[in-house]
Parts: sequence; C-alpha cells; structure tokens
Amino acid sequence: MNAALSDDSDRPIGVFDSGMGGLTVLSALMARLPHEDMLYLGDTARLPYGTKSRRTVARYALQAAEKLVSMRVKALVIACNTATAAALDEVRAAWPQLSVLGVVEPGAAAACAATRNNRIAVIATESTIRGGAYQRAIQAIRPDSSVIGQSCSLFVPLAEEGWMDGPIVEAVAKRYLEPLFMSGASGGQSGAADGQPDAPNKPDIPQPDCLVLGCTHFPTLTATIAKVLGDLSVGQVTIVDSAATTAQAVKNKLRELDLLNRQSQPGQARFMTTDDEARFARIGSLFLGRQLEAGQVELVNL
Amino acid sequence: MNAALSDDSDRPIGVFDSGMGGLTVLSALMARLPHEDMLYLGDTARLPYGTKSRRTVARYALQAAEKLVSMRVKALVIACNTATAAALDEVRAAWPQLSVLGVVEPGAAAACAATRNNRIAVIATESTIRGGAYQRAIQAIRPDSSVIGQSCSLFVPLAEEGWMDGPIVEAVAKRYLEPLFMSGASGGQSGAADGQPDAPNKPDIPQPDCLVLGCTHFPTLTATIAKVLGDLSVGQVTIVDSAATTAQAVKNKLRELDLLNRQSQPGQARFMTTDDEARFARIGSLFLGRQLEAGQVELVNL
Repeated sequence: MNAALSDDSDRPIGVFDSGMGGLTVLSALMARLPHEDMLYLGDTARLPYGTKSRRTVARYALQAAEKLVSMRVKALVIACNTATAAALDEVRAAWPQLSVLGVVEPGAAAACAATRNNRIAVIATESTIRGGAYQRAIQAIRPDSSVIGQSCSLFVPLAEEGWMDGPIVEAVAKRYLEPLFMSGASGGQSGAADGQPDAPNKPDIPQPDCLVLGCTHFPTLTATIAKVLGDLSVGQVTIVDSAATTAQAVKNKLRELDLLNRQSQPGQARFMTTDDEARFARIGSLFLGRQLEAGQVELVNL
Repeated sequence: MNAALSDDSDRPIGVFDSGMGGLTVLSALMARLPHEDMLYLGDTARLPYGTKSRRTVARYALQAAEKLVSMRVKALVIACNTATAAALDEVRAAWPQLSVLGVVEPGAAAACAATRNNRIAVIATESTIRGGAYQRAIQAIRPDSSVIGQSCSLFVPLAEEGWMDGPIVEAVAKRYLEPLFMSGASGGQSGAADGQPDAPNKPDIPQPDCLVLGCTHFPTLTATIAKVLGDLSVGQVTIVDSAATTAQAVKNKLRELDLLNRQSQPGQARFMTTDDEARFARIGSLFLGRQLEAGQVELVNL
C-alpha cells in the first residue's frame, strides 16, 4: 500500500487549457509545488474556447482530459475558466477516482475573501460570462453578494498579440470596465441613479471593490487594468486572479490524499500543443514568464 | 448528355470559411449570381484559422470541402484567404473534376489591375502573410511588382466584436498601416531614407498605391481603413477586396462549363455552422449585410 502510494505520488500533475493562457496557472503551480512534475497541454488547434458553445467546449475539454489521463496523471487541473465553466462536472464524472480541479471555484473563493462590501465584478470570456459560472460559485459562498459580469472578448487576442500596455489596450480596457463600475455605482441598472441627480458622486449603492480576472489570459494585462481603474476614479479595487489560489487548492488536495511528490530535486514540466510548436513557444513565453523554445514543445493530436 | 448537364447546373455552389467572414464573399456571389443556390459552411467550432499552422488549416479545409462535396455541389469556393493559401492545391488535388476557386488569385488580379506604380500592400491574417501566398500570386501576374505585407491579427476579433469604427479601431488600424506606408516610402527598409534627411516628403521610392484586404473579415472595416489612410497623409490608395472579383471569377467559370443555373426564380442560400447557431446568425448578419436568424442556421459536424 505504501509502495503503491509512493508510486502514485511520483506521477505528474496534468494541466490543460485551450492554448497558452493556462501557462499563468502552470507558473503558479510550479512556484507553489516546485517538486512536482507537470504535463501541460494547450489545445491551440482549436483555440479560443471563449467564443464557442458550452457543448463544443465540453467535448474539447473531455478529449484533452483523456489525453492527460492516458499519461497517468495523479491530478488534473483545468487551467481555463471557459473549460472549467463548461466541463468541470463532466470531466469529474468521466474519471470519478481522479482529483479534478478547475479555476472558477478558487477564483470565487479568493474574491469572497477579498471583498469588503460584497459587490464583486467579474471579467471573462463571452462563454464564461454567458454561462454564469462565477456568479453561481461566488453566491454559493456568499449568498448575499452582488456579482456583475462583463465579457472582454478582445483581451485574449490583445494579450496574444503581445499588446499588454499602451493607449490602445487602455482604451479597450476602459470601454469594458467603465460600465461595470458605473453600473455598480448605480445599482446594476442603467438609469437607476436618475432619482438622485444631485449626488452623482455619492451613490447609495457602492461600486464593486473586487475585480475577478476570470480568464487565464487576463493576468498579463493586470497593470493596464489597474491603471484604468485609477483613471476611472473608482475606490480601492482588489484585483483577484485565480492562479495562486488554484495552485494552493491543488497543493491542499494532494496533501490531503498523501500524493505530494517526495522527490528532492526540482520537478520537470513537459509542454504539449495541438498546433504550431513555434507559436506556442513564442506566445507561451509571455504567459509563463520565462523563455520557452519551440524544441521544448511537443505536437500531439487529440 | 444535355439532360445530365441540365441536372448539374441545378446543383448548388458550395462556399466555406472558418466562420462568418466568408459571408462577405457569399454576399458578392449572391449579387452576381442571383439564380444560383448556395450552401455556406462556417467552421466556427475551430475558428479562427488565421493564427494556426498551414498543416492544421489544410486538414480543416479538406474536411469542410468533403462535407460540401458530399452534398453534390457543382463548384466550390474557398471564401477564406487563410484556407485558400493553405489548402487550395490540396482541395483541387482531392477533387480534380470539381471547379475549386479561392479568393487569393482574384484578389491578386484585382490588385494588379488597380495599381499604377506596381507597389502593392497586403493586409491579412498572420498565417496568410507568413505563407506569402499573395506575394506569389501578385508576382505571377506582375513579376516587376513590389509587395509588402502586414498581419493584422486584431482586425478579426474587432470585426467579430462589432467594433468597426471609432477611436479604438482607428488606433489599431493606424498601428498596423503606418509601417506599411512608411516602409513603402523608404523603400521597404527602415532607415533607408537616412540619406535624404531634407526631403522626407519626397521619397525616391513611392508608397504603395493599392491596399489588398487579404482577409474576408476586413471589408467590414473599410471605412475605418480609408479614414486612417487619409490621416496618414498618404496619396491616393485603392482598397481592393477580393469578394467581387471572386464572384466574377466563379461566374466566368460556370459559364465556361455551361453550369449556370437556368432557373428563373431567385436562388436559395442555406447556412451551416459547426458551432453555436445563434452566434453565427448574430455576427454573420454583420458580414452578410442582412439579418440572419438562428433558426435559418443548421448545426453540422465535420
């Protein structure tokens, strides 16, 4: 039994995403779990997931999960908000013995820990916002909270183009964020402040004090988002990204199952993509925060 | 023999694209060939093609073509520059008896007809620019021409977000177009004008006088592109999009093969997508130029 457990603890953690965005989660996992081996799979042949239907994303996510399960992972991390929202339950149902963690629940928990006024704003892809996964996850923890969401479809291609700051990204961020914080100030309904025309700066209902980055691409835009929030003259807003809390949740789960790797040397990461290793390495470097070379990336078919 | 020909002429024209952009080509086909029935297939489950590898795009294009061939089309139009560049030869090889037309050759022909100074700029997706298909097609017609290309990855998501004018799109367009026309003015190499510092406005080598919209999404941004060219104070630039010339090329080919439909009533268009009929209808309306309802769109699997 001990020998079997020891074998299991040596197995890698599987991480998948539609493409490169999940590398922000992998980076947090590597920092928090430096002795674990990691298998990362980015489904770049079919990215992005965020503009596609729940049904299609779930089908893709199950295929990615199956690939990693066939490589004998000891736990599976869905490092993509869209895929978590669309397919976490289905992936768990397909492999009930395996620990499967998504990024939505840790992100929701972090937001609930950060907010002081119970008003939380979420920015994510079109699919994640439409499905309401964050709203449900946050209100499961804090039923009295108010959650407003905004899809930011252009943030993903902007991040992938490497345009992470400067006037264009700021203008895009302002266009997406302004209504969130304006509608927060007016109670979530446009025109709700009409009854108090003399006090536009003293709304009865406070603005959100917490902004969840509900897409793994968005942390690369944090500096710009923070700057725009400052320009919008909103109060103190805590920006929450789920990478660090997801990594902690994975660590807790592995410890609970006695599956933490006992090796003393640093863990190894192995990178797989379904299309174009060179592009994965080039753009992936932006998200991973260190240089990746095309030679380190394997092409796989799902 | 005549009966068989008559049967063949009744068959529909098949048109495919990675998603909704090809509807700009379909619209031109419907205008030029009002008595033809059309089958349109948008592979939205895997869009965009423009950031993916040639090999992957070719695989997807062959699957889309196979679907339409199985529906007995009399001709096939690849209404996507990326897929044309990646897969025209392979699709023709797979169905040698079928007329298969892409959008690159008609676009190149239109550019060669429009330019007066033989300097042509092409904007397209990352994949199309990297593959150099326009450069080859233009120089096959005009070997003495000079072609410069620029990938404009953000134009597709901007068009799909419905942001087709206004300061953000203008700023993005300026960022992409400025180097094209500046490098044109300095002979294609930055710093080449250093030898003539007193005459920055009188370069020896003229700027491009023709801009090819080498992606079917881009015609929706024509007004913004034209405005930015004006702001850049470049000379008269003809903007070429391949939709109309592709439609004419299809008409010529059908006439040559005696395959023009002889019915007197208007042709019917049928729309198929691989994901999310509602999103296809909503965004597709922008490209088709008339309202599409989700109920008019069928979901198919490739």
